[in-house]
Amino acid sequence: MRVDGREPMALRRIEFVTPVTKHAEGSCLVKFGDTHVLCTATLEEKVPPFLRGQGSGWVTAEYGMLPRSTHQRMDREAAKGKQSGRTQEIQRLIGRALRSVVDLVQLGERQIKLDCDVLQADGGTRTASICGAYIALAQSLKPLIQQKIIPPSVMKDSIAAISCGIYNDRILVDLSYEEDSAAQVDANFVMTGSGKIVEIQGTAEGNPFAEDQFIQMLAAAREALGEITQMQRMILEGAQ
Amino acid sequence: MRVDGREPMALRRIEFVTPVTKHAEGSCLVKFGDTHVLCTATLEEKVPPFLRGQGSGWVTAEYGMLPRSTHQRMDREAAKGKQSGRTQEIQRLIGRALRSVVDLVQLGERQIKLDCDVLQADGGTRTASICGAYIALAQSLKPLIQQKIIPPSVMKDSIAAISCGIYNDRILVDLSYEEDSAAQVDANFVMTGSGKIVEIQGTAEGNPFAEDQFIQMLAAAREALGEITQMQRMILEGAQ
Amino acid sequence: MRVDGREPMALRRIEFVTPVTKHAEGSCLVKFGDTHVLCTATLEEKVPPFLRGQGSGWVTAEYGMLPRSTHQRMDREAAKGKQSGRTQEIQRLIGRALRSVVDLVQLGERQIKLDCDVLQADGGTRTASICGAYIALAQSLKPLIQQKIIPPSVMKDSIAAISCGIYNDRILVDLSYEEDSAAQVDANFVMTGSGKIVEIQGTAEGNPFAEDQFIQMLAAAREALGEITQMQRMILEGAQ
Amino acid sequence: MRVDGREPMALRRIEFVTPVTKHAEGSCLVKFGDTHVLCTATLEEKVPPFLRGQGSGWVTAEYGMLPRSTHQRMDREAAKGKQSGRTQEIQRLIGRALRSVVDLVQLGERQIKLDCDVLQADGGTRTASICGAYIALAQSLKPLIQQKIIPPSVMKDSIAAISCGIYNDRILVDLSYEEDSAAQVDANFVMTGSGKIVEIQGTAEGNPFAEDQFIQMLAAAREALGEITQMQRMILEGAQ
Amino acid sequence: MRVDGREPMALRRIEFVTPVTKHAEGSCLVKFGDTHVLCTATLEEKVPPFLRGQGSGWVTAEYGMLPRSTHQRMDREAAKGKQSGRTQEIQRLIGRALRSVVDLVQLGERQIKLDCDVLQADGGTRTASICGAYIALAQSLKPLIQQKIIPPSVMKDSIAAISCGIYNDRILVDLSYEEDSAAQVDANFVMTGSGKIVEIQGTAEGNPFAEDQFIQMLAAAREALGEITQMQRMILEGAQ
Amino acid sequence: MRVDGREPMALRRIEFVTPVTKHAEGSCLVKFGDTHVLCTATLEEKVPPFLRGQGSGWVTAEYGMLPRSTHQRMDREAAKGKQSGRTQEIQRLIGRALRSVVDLVQLGERQIKLDCDVLQADGGTRTASICGAYIALAQSLKPLIQQKIIPPSVMKDSIAAISCGIYNDRILVDLSYEEDSAAQVDANFVMTGSGKIVEIQGTAEGNPFAEDQFIQMLAAAREALGEITQMQRMILEGAQ
Repeated sequence: MRVDGREPMALRRIEFVTPVTKHAEGSCLVKFGDTHVLCTATLEEKVPPFLRGQGSGWVTAEYGMLPRSTHQRMDREAAKGKQSGRTQEIQRLIGRALRSVVDLVQLGERQIKLDCDVLQADGGTRTASICGAYIALAQSLKPLIQQKIIPPSVMKDSIAAISCGIYNDRILVDLSYEEDSAAQVDANFVMTGSGKIVEIQGTAEGNPFAEDQFIQMLAAAREALGEITQMQRMILEGAQ
Repeated sequence: MRVDGREPMALRRIEFVTPVTKHAEGSCLVKFGDTHVLCTATLEEKVPPFLRGQGSGWVTAEYGMLPRSTHQRMDREAAKGKQSGRTQEIQRLIGRALRSVVDLVQLGERQIKLDCDVLQADGGTRTASICGAYIALAQSLKPLIQQKIIPPSVMKDSIAAISCGIYNDRILVDLSYEEDSAAQVDANFVMTGSGKIVEIQGTAEGNPFAEDQFIQMLAAAREALGEITQMQRMILEGAQ
Repeated sequence: MRVDGREPMALRRIEFVTPVTKHAEGSCLVKFGDTHVLCTATLEEKVPPFLRGQGSGWVTAEYGMLPRSTHQRMDREAAKGKQSGRTQEIQRLIGRALRSVVDLVQLGERQIKLDCDVLQADGGTRTASICGAYIALAQSLKPLIQQKIIPPSVMKDSIAAISCGIYNDRILVDLSYEEDSAAQVDANFVMTGSGKIVEIQGTAEGNPFAEDQFIQMLAAAREALGEITQMQRMILEGAQ
Repeated sequence: MRVDGREPMALRRIEFVTPVTKHAEGSCLVKFGDTHVLCTATLEEKVPPFLRGQGSGWVTAEYGMLPRSTHQRMDREAAKGKQSGRTQEIQRLIGRALRSVVDLVQLGERQIKLDCDVLQADGGTRTASICGAYIALAQSLKPLIQQKIIPPSVMKDSIAAISCGIYNDRILVDLSYEEDSAAQVDANFVMTGSGKIVEIQGTAEGNPFAEDQFIQMLAAAREALGEITQMQRMILEGAQ
Repeated sequence: MRVDGREPMALRRIEFVTPVTKHAEGSCLVKFGDTHVLCTATLEEKVPPFLRGQGSGWVTAEYGMLPRSTHQRMDREAAKGKQSGRTQEIQRLIGRALRSVVDLVQLGERQIKLDCDVLQADGGTRTASICGAYIALAQSLKPLIQQKIIPPSVMKDSIAAISCGIYNDRILVDLSYEEDSAAQVDANFVMTGSGKIVEIQGTAEGNPFAEDQFIQMLAAAREALGEITQMQRMILEGAQ
Repeated sequence: MRVDGREPMALRRIEFVTPVTKHAEGSCLVKFGDTHVLCTATLEEKVPPFLRGQGSGWVTAEYGMLPRSTHQRMDREAAKGKQSGRTQEIQRLIGRALRSVVDLVQLGERQIKLDCDVLQADGGTRTASICGAYIALAQSLKPLIQQKIIPPSVMKDSIAAISCGIYNDRILVDLSYEEDSAAQVDANFVMTGSGKIVEIQGTAEGNPFAEDQFIQMLAAAREALGEITQMQRMILEGAQ
């Protein structure tokens, strides 16, 4: 049994609150247990320079952690004057994930900027960010779809992500910070609502792992992502 | 009457929620209407280099705005690689304000870092930050006071801050963003619970103002700060 | 009596030398005792991007200290790669102060950049900078006014600034560095020649102060600023 | 058939030249077709601060591309003043990969810094870097092993990496830049000589992919990595 | 006799390999003994902003050292976030030297960027860079000259550079790193193929030197540069 | 005849004012015509890390230009966040020049930092800086020499610098900005009071020059430097 009493394949308590801020076109506070991420979507009627005049839109993401979102306070990246390699890696991942479910041509010359800011961290901030950013993104497009400025098919699919790990040779899903620190293998899976793979990242710094372990993690992730996809669907249907 | 129907001297609805995060030694989510600031206090058992070995503690503050806390999305300071002049001015103000009510010698060789992160902005973020940071700071010291590691007199007083302005020649208290943008004069008052002045800032970019207008703003601020001080007292007494 | 024998309300010996440099459109070396600041005004026939095509001009300021203008050598900001929070705070103050007396619409699509560089520091560098920058600014506009390109009313008023402090419960005006370091309260007042207030900043890090002390400082500042205004007027009339 | 006439599962011509520089403790110029990376290993008798006094060593990596290693010249990162997110992502990957095959405790308080500099790029620079850095790393440890300062078991395994992709629904191995740009899916596999997985990264920005496609890529990578492992073994045996 | 057995006036073994990279318009790997520099020329059909619309082209250079090109590993400038003063000084020198032999008006609105990256360093990297960059530059222009887009006279002359020094009161030419470190005087001479002087730099940090010693170094440099000019000519004639 | 009526070999009016600031251990305002540089020497009782515990001192220099010291206002380097290549080149030159006349072992574990700040520029700021920094440096050491803490021989020689150029095939000495801009060749000579050469820099971007022209410039510089050396000697003898 796990630290918090969960079964190996059980997700933490997940919550999506939308909208949560007054100014953003779309917003979602996503909680996976004690991991809380505030996601906002900003819709701009222009694209970055490299896309101008090409009839295509863009989706990009930025990620940050509040200095005391973590057990130990981290230095503020704005004060240090640069974003860490980890921050950049995560925001690139979130951006790629969200772009995979948006039809950029149907979006037209618009850009959606997703800001994922971790208010409290307890493992799995990048996967929670993807899950919440999807809600914020979908919300930001609703008015344009309702006004028939862009077709509903601009959202090609939904997207969600989850972490898996191997601890004492058992596969665990949705690891907390404590589990993550102790796990031999750390993997993240990003899949669409229809079950296709968008991104797979598996890393074993200390102990390389066998192929069948990886296949088991993939299966576990697929099941967990099915549950999250259901929740996302309900939230979006329920939200005004 | 004001945009939101308030009387000129009326404060917006104020809320202090404490604690609000799992990891910080003290934390407070403070709301002045639609302005929401998450304040955390991190207590460290060491002081910055310039104070080492001098038997005195330190209190400092950092301030940030989430990119989409504002009407228009602002560029992320961590991505730009530097904090704006405005950010630095505000965090220096918050730090000075809080230091004025802490007995640094009684604090001993400890440092308290206050992080004030604006989740949603609608005017008055710097004054709300001071009000909320005071709660977070007081909370972070409670265990040490209870364990008699430091005496209760380490908190010399409470501290609060409020903005005033002049609009159409009328004095307004606790301005929203819309009022702030239109006001001829923008002033911030920081006072202790016992009514002493810690900081006064009055600025009139467009139209210089007369001395008696300033005196009226000072009186209005004093009254508003009395109310806020009451709320802070109740919150700290109520909080565990 | 004060360190240098002055009465509490007495200003240090003040000197304005204009012009002092060959290239700038306006320039002034201002001395308040041992505080010496070289102020230059650069007039450009274009405005920053946010003002383009709006028929309005702009006034901005930059501030710097030579590394050995101070008792202890300070690191050069250009070498450190960034301006300190204090530097940014001061240059924002100088810019706001000067903008308050210029009719930006009458100025037309022009920008005046004021550079205030401290050659020698002994307290009060920001207030001296404002006093000297006003002279440099006025000088830079003279030729345009004489050629009737812009009307004389572009200068709405004159502007000056002075520091006050409380030391041993006495109000002192125009503090030297030594007095400033020992003072309980540090305040800066920026007023127009006609006696209106443009900016008030009062700070008490160690000991909060009472309202009547603040009112006394305001009165003292008003008197001192009257003297400085007289000197500025004479200098500008005398200068070619 | 592929652009350069290769079979889908065929590797490009691979070459390892070691040693190639006079000063480094270990060095290898690795070529995968037109992708050429110069890898050096620097052995230092001290560890980074976070490891001091813990009896463990460290392995880290840095990655760079010469400005004109690419089709279009890229701006020099040293001139821009920062490393891109991509650069940081790659050097973190290389570091993790190499650490996975070194017994850091047997290494003792030593650090090995691997520099992978791309002289010419034609796809697969990160996987080539890992293959070449392994040779450089192994070479740098040989003298210490020969002098019995550290045991041969410090190298727990060998390590290699390869890219796979899906193009027109066919699995391709070891993609050139042109193939990489056109591929629907881009995946990188890092495995040990004994066939364990160290890192898997699969990304589908445009078109999410099915699980069985991923399994096929994994099998293809495994075969290719077997070949590279053979070459690495021969090179290390042949090198003095 | 010198460390490597050379006569005082003897050059190290010099090699020019061109072309050496697939993508650059011109490229040359230049070797002076153990000093190896990879020079590439990138030809762009646009000029920097300060030259736009003036009918003139531009030639500029950038210089870098691989971290382990040196005896001790140097920190990577891209990681440190800035180029050292030495790097900037050298790349400015290379740029000036190459511009002196190109007719910028005949070049037309084109820019040539020369990248000189030191793969292995053993003294004289800046002079070797100039010699190799000349080859890369000349190669990059050949196709345009052959297609009669620009006249052959765009290359006004050839250019080469060499170091001289004084060691134990003897003049040495083409110093290795070891000699350079021990020399009392360090001088670099840049001359055209026709024997005109483009740049002279002589520095004596420890021991100022006499005029006649300088004149002797100048004569020695002239002779050495004659040899290098011959080699450059042969290489360019031989290269396709 | 020259723009300002000078003979080709004539220096501009030169002035050395010392001391000129209250805080620095040594200071000198040096004027070469309209070029005015404020030089200060800061004496510190510690050396940079690379020299600690080696019984040797250090001399270093920093250089800056006030933004409006020039015809067109230049951006402030502190605001841009970095020093230009030109600035770094000049401050390295000043540092080398001054170190060449100080016996660093006799100086002991002390560091002298020379700050050369250009108040007004009209050509020759780097050479004027060297001339003035020498005076500031010498002044800063006088008290230690008088108190016999260090021997007078710590100053091995005096140092001065001058620019020469070729304009219309005539050699000119001490070029103004206008002359400098039009000159075909720009050279700087740094020599000791006893006539030894410390640094020679000759650059011909547009038109390479002949050896005999260089020899003539060297002779002209030698004569001019003799005059400056005389002035420096008189100033130092006259100064208290």
